[in-house]
Amino acid sequence: MSDPNRQKLIDQIAGSLPIPQEIRAEFAAFTADTVMLGAWGREELSARDRSLITIAALTALDRPHELEIHVGLGLTNGLSREDICEIVMHMAVYGGWPVAVEGMRTLKRVFEGLDQS
Amino acid sequence: MSDPNRQKLIDQIAGSLPIPQEIRAEFAAFTADTVMLGAWGREELSARDRSLITIAALTALDRPHELEIHVGLGLTNGLSREDICEIVMHMAVYGGWPVAVEGMRTLKRVFEGLDQS
Amino acid sequence: MSDPNRQKLIDQIAGSLPIPQEIRAEFAAFTADTVMLGAWGREELSARDRSLITIAALTALDRPHELEIHVGLGLTNGLSREDICEIVMHMAVYGGWPVAVEGMRTLKRVFEGLDQS
Amino acid sequence: MSDPNRQKLIDQIAGSLPIPQEIRAEFAAFTADTVMLGAWGREELSARDRSLITIAALTALDRPHELEIHVGLGLTNGLSREDICEIVMHMAVYGGWPVAVEGMRTLKRVFEGLDQS
Amino acid sequence: MSDPNRQKLIDQIAGSLPIPQEIRAEFAAFTADTVMLGAWGREELSARDRSLITIAALTALDRPHELEIHVGLGLTNGLSREDICEIVMHMAVYGGWPVAVEGMRTLKRVFEGLDQS
Amino acid sequence: MSDPNRQKLIDQIAGSLPIPQEIRAEFAAFTADTVMLGAWGREELSARDRSLITIAALTALDRPHELEIHVGLGLTNGLSREDICEIVMHMAVYGGWPVAVEGMRTLKRVFEGLDQS
Repeated sequence: MSDPNRQKLIDQIAGSLPIPQEIRAEFAAFTADTVMLGAWGREELSARDRSLITIAALTALDRPHELEIHVGLGLTNGLSREDICEIVMHMAVYGGWPVAVEGMRTLKRVFEGLDQS
Repeated sequence: MSDPNRQKLIDQIAGSLPIPQEIRAEFAAFTADTVMLGAWGREELSARDRSLITIAALTALDRPHELEIHVGLGLTNGLSREDICEIVMHMAVYGGWPVAVEGMRTLKRVFEGLDQS
Repeated sequence: MSDPNRQKLIDQIAGSLPIPQEIRAEFAAFTADTVMLGAWGREELSARDRSLITIAALTALDRPHELEIHVGLGLTNGLSREDICEIVMHMAVYGGWPVAVEGMRTLKRVFEGLDQS
Repeated sequence: MSDPNRQKLIDQIAGSLPIPQEIRAEFAAFTADTVMLGAWGREELSARDRSLITIAALTALDRPHELEIHVGLGLTNGLSREDICEIVMHMAVYGGWPVAVEGMRTLKRVFEGLDQS
Repeated sequence: MSDPNRQKLIDQIAGSLPIPQEIRAEFAAFTADTVMLGAWGREELSARDRSLITIAALTALDRPHELEIHVGLGLTNGLSREDICEIVMHMAVYGGWPVAVEGMRTLKRVFEGLDQS
Repeated sequence: MSDPNRQKLIDQIAGSLPIPQEIRAEFAAFTADTVMLGAWGREELSARDRSLITIAALTALDRPHELEIHVGLGLTNGLSREDICEIVMHMAVYGGWPVAVEGMRTLKRVFEGLDQS
């Protein structure tokens, strides 16, 4: 990625994630390089596939804040609401019912927010 | 379980768990069949014993929302408040102090809610 | 699923999973009903998509025995070896490097086993 | 607990747990005071109840080495093999299928070891 | 530690942690003996080193309530804000980005609270 | 880091970690850039401090393979065996006894291996 685009990405992350100012620039750059350019930037898997596996992992690991972000991204990347519901339901089996119920709680909040906007 | 009772159970779950409408009926049915009828419905262990192990696991795994529900159920199933406090304290050793403190926080909230109602 | 097919599935599970005889038949039936028929049996998500999210979750949760089984199933369900490698690499970001390295260890063992057979 | 009994307990732990010599005496004493005297020594819950919740937590957290020890202790504390199987099966719902299958693997090994001795 | 000091410590814990009254005195004593006197009281590692490893573990395990307390203690024990930011950033690699972002959220809240007081 | 040194680092990782050949070069490069250059390469925290927090996290998260590597690195980075034992013992409190016992098992194996070599 060319330097101006990388810097734009870093600024975007620094502006949206809750990072203390003492390390904001560095952690945003680290996140841009690793998460965005290093993982999501690889073309060997489609964006839809990466959304599927990211939503699955965030549900299984019980990370509601990140899940909320990735539900929105998943819709952009071609997943339907029904697809996302299926991922979370599938996780009941692999991570246990409590993480699936937490995931459903997050989906409900995100979907209802979209319906009201 | 006869069909009308199963359906009543599904309706109850659909009405109480935070599930998006896109999958509400299916996830409620899956939960009724697996959690209620499949696990809790087995008579090889008493309801009191199942409450003991469920509260232990939810504390150790740090699942406060589900723990809150199961503290109430545990009281119904024959556990005293003191028994439930002992379970959470025991988990300090197996899951670490932070999960026990989180568990205590949940117990305090539930017990004080009961005292005020 | 008709009764004879369900019974065949239960027998297969009872014959392949490491279950003590004291509960073998019951746990195999519970697994068939919930994991196979309840989750994998739903047609709202393709088998390839279910393999993607299952491999992601098992890597993130660090469950090497189950991962080994699901790498083989994933190949059957249309994932390439490269796809599966990408899933595990993506998990470095969401579950941390140690779970990704463990996942890679499992992939290496499974792939080399296939090459030698 | 009187000093001679505490010291005997510490020696027993130092002789059975895999602890490097550099900290063996201190970690054994810390374990005796916290795990044995601090948690298990409390009489507010029966030994059978403590075995129930310990086996549940160790299964849900996927700690096979400790689980192996506590299956043996559970049998001594009044749990039947069938009870222990039920605990592990119940954990499929709360911790997910992979931790229950791992738990079953441990039970199978312990029970078959007992049958052969 | 002499008895009056231990009792003072117990009272302090009982007054600050969210513990239901049914077990407040016992859990506070257990915490004083194990966490404060048993672990933190050992002089083989400096208080600064113990703050480093505690903040690392609480971030990696995603325990925001306890992390909040230990950020404050870490500053008292000689860590700078920049040191603490580095610990949390380092955990992105070992526990995954979501736990690091949660950690950053906690640091931001604590540091901004200190700036406003 | 200049290109030749980065490439040497990548080759070293590709030669030592268990990575399937299908993704060996890419995952080694991703690891070099993120783990080695991105995290460990930052000078805001000493190598000794980074070893302290890495060993703490790997113990708390129960990652024995990675822990084994980092015990050796910790000794190189200025930690004594006694320091490392203290970290693992401290984790009994924050991650629970079972992860500390697993950590002790790893330390014992590594230390005894060093004594015999």
